[in-house]
Amino acid sequence: MKQDVIFFGSEDLKKLDKEFRRNFINSLSGYRSVNLCGTVNKKGITNLAIFNTVIHIGSEPPLIGMVIKPSSVPRDTLSNIIETGYYTLNHVAEEFIFKAHQTAARYDSNKSEFEIVKLRPFFTKTLPAPYAEESPVKIGLRLIEQFRLKSNRSTFIVGEVIETIIPSSLILNDGLLNLSLAHVVASSGIDTYYATQKIGRLSYPSPGKDIDLIG
Amino acid sequence: MKQDVIFFGSEDLKKLDKEFRRNFINSLSGYRSVNLCGTVNKKGITNLAIFNTVIHIGSEPPLIGMVIKPSSVPRDTLSNIIETGYYTLNHVAEEFIFKAHQTAARYDSNKSEFEIVKLRPFFTKTLPAPYAEESPVKIGLRLIEQFRLKSNRSTFIVGEVIETIIPSSLILNDGLLNLSLAHVVASSGIDTYYATQKIGRLSYPSPGKDIDLIG
Repeated sequence: MKQDVIFFGSEDLKKLDKEFRRNFINSLSGYRSVNLCGTVNKKGITNLAIFNTVIHIGSEPPLIGMVIKPSSVPRDTLSNIIETGYYTLNHVAEEFIFKAHQTAARYDSNKSEFEIVKLRPFFTKTLPAPYAEESPVKIGLRLIEQFRLKSNRSTFIVGEVIETIIPSSLILNDGLLNLSLAHVVASSGIDTYYATQKIGRLSYPSPGKDIDLIG
Repeated sequence: MKQDVIFFGSEDLKKLDKEFRRNFINSLSGYRSVNLCGTVNKKGITNLAIFNTVIHIGSEPPLIGMVIKPSSVPRDTLSNIIETGYYTLNHVAEEFIFKAHQTAARYDSNKSEFEIVKLRPFFTKTLPAPYAEESPVKIGLRLIEQFRLKSNRSTFIVGEVIETIIPSSLILNDGLLNLSLAHVVASSGIDTYYATQKIGRLSYPSPGKDIDLIG
């Protein structure tokens, strides 16, 4: 090991300054997706909140997971999802990261973030939750499972993808989305945004066979 | 909506070609982190497997989640984690993406991927699981919670971070990791790797206050 390497043990981590720990641990898991979650409550008030805790679970059936903190800013999101059973996820493109980031502010439940940050709600007949029209990748989901984590009282929800709305130009012939063409951003920590540049696609891994660059 | 937008509904998604759906749904959730998970079984045989389903859960206590598929390639990983209670996550840098990707091949349980792909195991006294020495960001975890998802029989595990080993040059003054300096990669789908370029850090969101670029 090189000399300039820092070891933090359990006790060191506990002693870290609160702000330092928040930035450090939030960036520790690696790059994160950035999605706006669109929901609506029974009164018809729409909500839009940024999440960087969205994760792929499986493709057959198509399932996406999301961690929702117990007392984090977008707390209307979970109650709306449970109330209506539906929500949308909308990828964030570089051109509207400021608006997307602003949805994390702690607004009253009777105000819609769509109006506040000036993103346009877009509805389909499939589900009651609103999409963000500006988003290049729109995903409609139906809540199918939820867990309360004992370790920090977060909720882990699983949604089945029931609709996708995506420009054809972003969908490659074999199904892969060209996220960098759409200027979809990645994030790290709680406030840092990244553009991406494709390194390459790698071949299917099999024992005894070298990995090749295939795209 | 523009004319070139493709709507897929639930029935459309079910009818997609298997390969197309796998690529499409795997890239639908957005950018993904890329981590090598290091484990060891009771016989002392080490295992290293690539995961792009790692997710931040909380910073106090420091918790990281991971989805493990029921019959995916790195099936030794889950049994080793349950057997020993410990595992490591190691960020993948651009210089060893071929080796990292190769760990997804379906090897016999009695062979170690460290030897096969030629990455070096590195141990500390804190936990029995091996780190990948080449990785710029090494995280030691203790299993504290697991759920079996009903929707597709995946397992969602939660680990508490009990050790981190990171070059000091990558840790900014306020705790944020400079992942792009370490050439840590992001991924999309099952086989596409990306380098990143920082767009910027955005200010803390508060109602009535504009978002600024702060770094």
